[in-house]
Order: sequence, then structure tokens, then C-alpha cells
Amino acid sequence: MTGPDDLPTFDDVVTTAARIAGVVHHTPVLTCRTLDDLCQAHVFFKCENLQKVGAFKARGASNAVLSLSNEKAARGVATHSSGNHGAALAWAAARRGIPAHVVMPRTSKAVKKAAVASYGAHVIECEPTLAAREATLAEVVAVTGATFVHPYNDPRVIAGQGTAALELCEEVHGLDAILAPVGGGGLLSGTALAVSGHCPHTAVWGVEPRAADDAFRSLQVGHIVPSLDPRTVADGLRTSLGTRTFALIQRHVRGIVTVSEEAIVAAMRLVWERMKIVVEPSSAVPLAALLEGGLELAGQRVGIILSGGNVDLEELAWGGRT
Amino acid sequence: MTGPDDLPTFDDVVTTAARIAGVVHHTPVLTCRTLDDLCQAHVFFKCENLQKVGAFKARGASNAVLSLSNEKAARGVATHSSGNHGAALAWAAARRGIPAHVVMPRTSKAVKKAAVASYGAHVIECEPTLAAREATLAEVVAVTGATFVHPYNDPRVIAGQGTAALELCEEVHGLDAILAPVGGGGLLSGTALAVSGHCPHTAVWGVEPRAADDAFRSLQVGHIVPSLDPRTVADGLRTSLGTRTFALIQRHVRGIVTVSEEAIVAAMRLVWERMKIVVEPSSAVPLAALLEGGLELAGQRVGIILSGGNVDLEELAWGGRT
Repeated sequence: MTGPDDLPTFDDVVTTAARIAGVVHHTPVLTCRTLDDLCQAHVFFKCENLQKVGAFKARGASNAVLSLSNEKAARGVATHSSGNHGAALAWAAARRGIPAHVVMPRTSKAVKKAAVASYGAHVIECEPTLAAREATLAEVVAVTGATFVHPYNDPRVIAGQGTAALELCEEVHGLDAILAPVGGGGLLSGTALAVSGHCPHTAVWGVEPRAADDAFRSLQVGHIVPSLDPRTVADGLRTSLGTRTFALIQRHVRGIVTVSEEAIVAAMRLVWERMKIVVEPSSAVPLAALLEGGLELAGQRVGIILSGGNVDLEELAWGGRT
Repeated sequence: MTGPDDLPTFDDVVTTAARIAGVVHHTPVLTCRTLDDLCQAHVFFKCENLQKVGAFKARGASNAVLSLSNEKAARGVATHSSGNHGAALAWAAARRGIPAHVVMPRTSKAVKKAAVASYGAHVIECEPTLAAREATLAEVVAVTGATFVHPYNDPRVIAGQGTAALELCEEVHGLDAILAPVGGGGLLSGTALAVSGHCPHTAVWGVEPRAADDAFRSLQVGHIVPSLDPRTVADGLRTSLGTRTFALIQRHVRGIVTVSEEAIVAAMRLVWERMKIVVEPSSAVPLAALLEGGLELAGQRVGIILSGGNVDLEELAWGGRT
């Protein structure tokens, strides 16, 4: 199977990094001696939870918005999302002063709709099915002339997400491996692209919940296996791969590792307790792989992209409380 | 009233910064657009919650330990503490490979005793009174020959705590004001000392809970007013000033502002939600002053020292849950 022919390149990541510099945060890289001891490795955490809108999604969204001609930009951007991409696109559009239309399932939590609306975006509710999302989005695009920015299967978005790993590699030299969580694959494919050009000897691994292991299975069989009703606490990783992200992952990623739900929660708690930063469950998935032993990287220098920090503090449950 | 004559100087802060570089983290400075909007100011957060042992206390403790001659160091260090200083001293001693003796009230939480012990310190329990703490400590020092390192009223500790503000001023120029929480006054007096030498036009303010306003009252009457059974969520700020910290605060601090308990909890929650970092209630006290309006700094460039991030995740209560 060949991939789509408009895949982004390493040069696109470099160009994107220059385009969005000063728009997104150059996030810090943190280390933690306790976690190093637990993982028996030297781990460098790229803190995209400290990024604008609380997630790496700000990178891809702002790249997509800033790549538009003035004429196209004036008609706005549109997407469907119930999570961080919707907020990121709304934020990026507001920054450029153009309209954003975000299609959200009517079952989305009020707090998420409010977050998107708080950036001034136009929120359009739809039935909670993929068909309804796509039909509603098509209608919005037809009526407004807005440019559709896919949450991950978009060359500008992939190149944008890759800038986090580029910054990490520029700051921390000699990494043996970089781990990123994989849902739709935008972050993982962008990471792999950045590493392939900047430090090709660094191995890139994707990590996903065992309960949503569609990327693992897709790589095994050589075509995209859709994610059907996955039940995982890592709510950012429930989506299936796209054609572009899959093609790049096939080409540049060493492999996909899966982790248990228990390991995800334990890793998330360790990050809060020992690193003093707020991460969402999806962020904790790569660390879970090191702690659970699914990846054997003892003694190595390992980069981890902490993807985001958007959790509802009201809903926190650590298992120790009822 | 004149203060003790062995007060640390600005030069001590500079010397200390060189001594502890590479031992403690050079913590990042974070900004948050949402909080800027809420405060109507440009706020720069010095993240000592991301410091070793999760608090600025690592600075003073490591300076005290590294200042000892080999001969003195060999006999170890001792302190009384139920909080971050005990853990910081234990950590710093372990790093130098010398003994640490930490006297803790037997009513201290098991998790806190375990934290101190986890760094290899010798934990000695005592009755939960000041007299018992001091008597037990005196006995430990007499028996072991260890050097007593006071949690805040110690020139080496004060100079160490001041290095956080020094780093902040070196990184962010033209600050109009710097705010620090005040309990025993080690952080505030060190901050004021650093600023007095590095950027004397920057105003230093102390902030404390209204329910533990002994520093405010001490400055008003011109002598140390002890803190008697204060009831505040900011458990790091329940102690009274020391002679050295009081003398430096009188000399170099613009004033003390007090805040409500409600404002502290609201500020803490905002930091978790919007900045995605874990801070303990004491850390949120300066931001509470900006949000509550007790300090009028509209449009100004304001530095805040976020003092620490040691909270018990099991005990989190936001008011939204029961």
C-alpha cells in the first residue's frame, strides 16, 4: 500500500517551527531523578501540557491557520472535535482574527463546549455519530467557505505537531529513543518526521492503551484497522489513524507498544506527585510503557512527549477516594 | 530595634548561587495569558514547585550543607521540621553523604515522616509542642555533634532561598514588583536581599493568609508578634518570623498584604487548571493577592515565587466534591 502523495517532509517541520515561533510556547524540558530511578533510564519530558491551550494541538492548529492565504483565512476555518483540537483551532483562529466553526457532538461535556466557545469560536452541535459529524461539517464548510482543518490527517497539522520533538532534539542531544502517545497519529507521525531528519539514529516508538490498540494492529496487518468503541481512560487516544499519519508511521516509527489501564493511571499519578505538573491520562501513556516494562530501554536516554494537561479537576479519582 | 549582626548580604546570595548551581534545578519561569487577563498585569511565575524535593527549601538546605567544613559535615546536620525543610535537609545531606537527624512531632502524618526517611534521614519523634521539639533537638545535637540548620532563621538558609529571586531577576528584566509568601520569612527575606542588590527599583511584597497575619502585625508594631494557633489552608505559612528574617524584612520589604482563605483556594485551583502545574496552598497566596485586589499593580510586570508543590493528592478537595 502506498500512502497519499502530499505527505509533509522534514523540511516542512523546520519551516513550521519558524512560522509558529513566538505564537506557541517553547515549552520546557523537565527531568525527575525519582522517575529516572523507577524507569532505570534517563528520561527527558517535553512538557506540552504547558503549551498554549494546554496541549501540543496548539502547534498544528496555529500552523494550519497561519499557512492560509489572506483570502482563504478571511472565510475562516472549521473542524469537528470534542477535545483539544477544537480548542486549539479556536484559539489559533482568534489569534489571527478569523472565524472558527467547531462541530461538537451534543453529548460533549458543557465544560468542553464552553472552552471552545471561550476562544470566540462558533460551536455547532450535532448527533454523536461519525456520520452526523461529517455531514454537519460538510454543511458548515459549504455555507461559510471555511477551510477544513482535520484534527490529525492534515500535512500542516502533522508538521506542526512535529515541532515539539524538533525542539526536544535541539535541546537534549544524544537521545536513544523518543516515545509519543498515538491516537489519530498526528503527534507520533510529526515526531517521527522531525526525528528522521534531525537525528535519524534516535528510535521513535508509539505507545497506546492496550484497550485501544488499533495502531498496533494496523502496523501488524499493513492497513488501517479502525478503533471500534475503545474503553480507555486515555480519552485523547480513542481515535483511529488517518491515511497520512499511517503512511508516515509505517515509514519512520520503530514500533508500537501497548500498556494497561492500571499502568496509565499509576504513571499519571507519579507525574503529578513527583514532577508537580498536571497531565491528562493520554500524556502518561509513554511513561506507563517504561514503568510496565513493555519497552526495554535500561540505561538509555529517552525523550517523552507529554501531550497535554487538560483534565477536569472535579472528576479526579485516584482510586484512593470514593 | 536592631537586628542580629550576622545578617546575610546580597554578596552572600551571589556566592550561594554559584555554590548550589548544578545541585538544585534552575527552575523555569512560566507565564499564562489567562491569569494575566484576570490579574490585569504581566505575571512571571518562578516555579519552585518544580525544584528538587518540590520546594524552594532545597536551595537553603543545600547551601547550609555545602557551607560546612569537612570536619563539621562529618558529624551531620539536624533540624526540627514537620514539612518541606526536613525533607530538603535530608536530601541535601544524603547528596553530600553525611547524616541528617530530623526531629518531627509524633503527630506528623506518616506520609511526611516517610518522605524524610526516604532520603535516608534519621527521624526522631517528639511530643507536638515547641518545647518538646527544642529539647529533643538539643539532645540530638549534644549526642551527635550535628550542626543545627534552622528552617529559616539561618544566614545560609536565607541566602539560599534568595537565589530563586536572583534567577528570576536575571531572566526577566524590568520587573516592577516581586511577591513572595511569608511564613517564617526565609523566602521573603532572601528574595528581598536578592532584589535589593540586583534590581533595587523592584518592589518586594510579602503576602500571607489573613488567618495567619503575624508578619503583617509584626511590621506594624516593630517587633515580632508570634503566630498563635493559626488556622489556614496554607500549612507552610503557619510559623512566626525569626530575628534575622524579621530584620531583613523590615529593611528591604515594601509591605505585607493579607488574603482570605477563599482567595487562596481559588488561586490554587486556577494555577492547576490554567497553568497545568501542581502547587501547594502556600504557593497560591501571592496570586490570591492579585486576584483579590489587595495589591494594586494593574499593567505592571510582576514576579511571583511559587514556593512549592507538595500536596497529598488523596486529600484534594476543591469544594466541588464531598
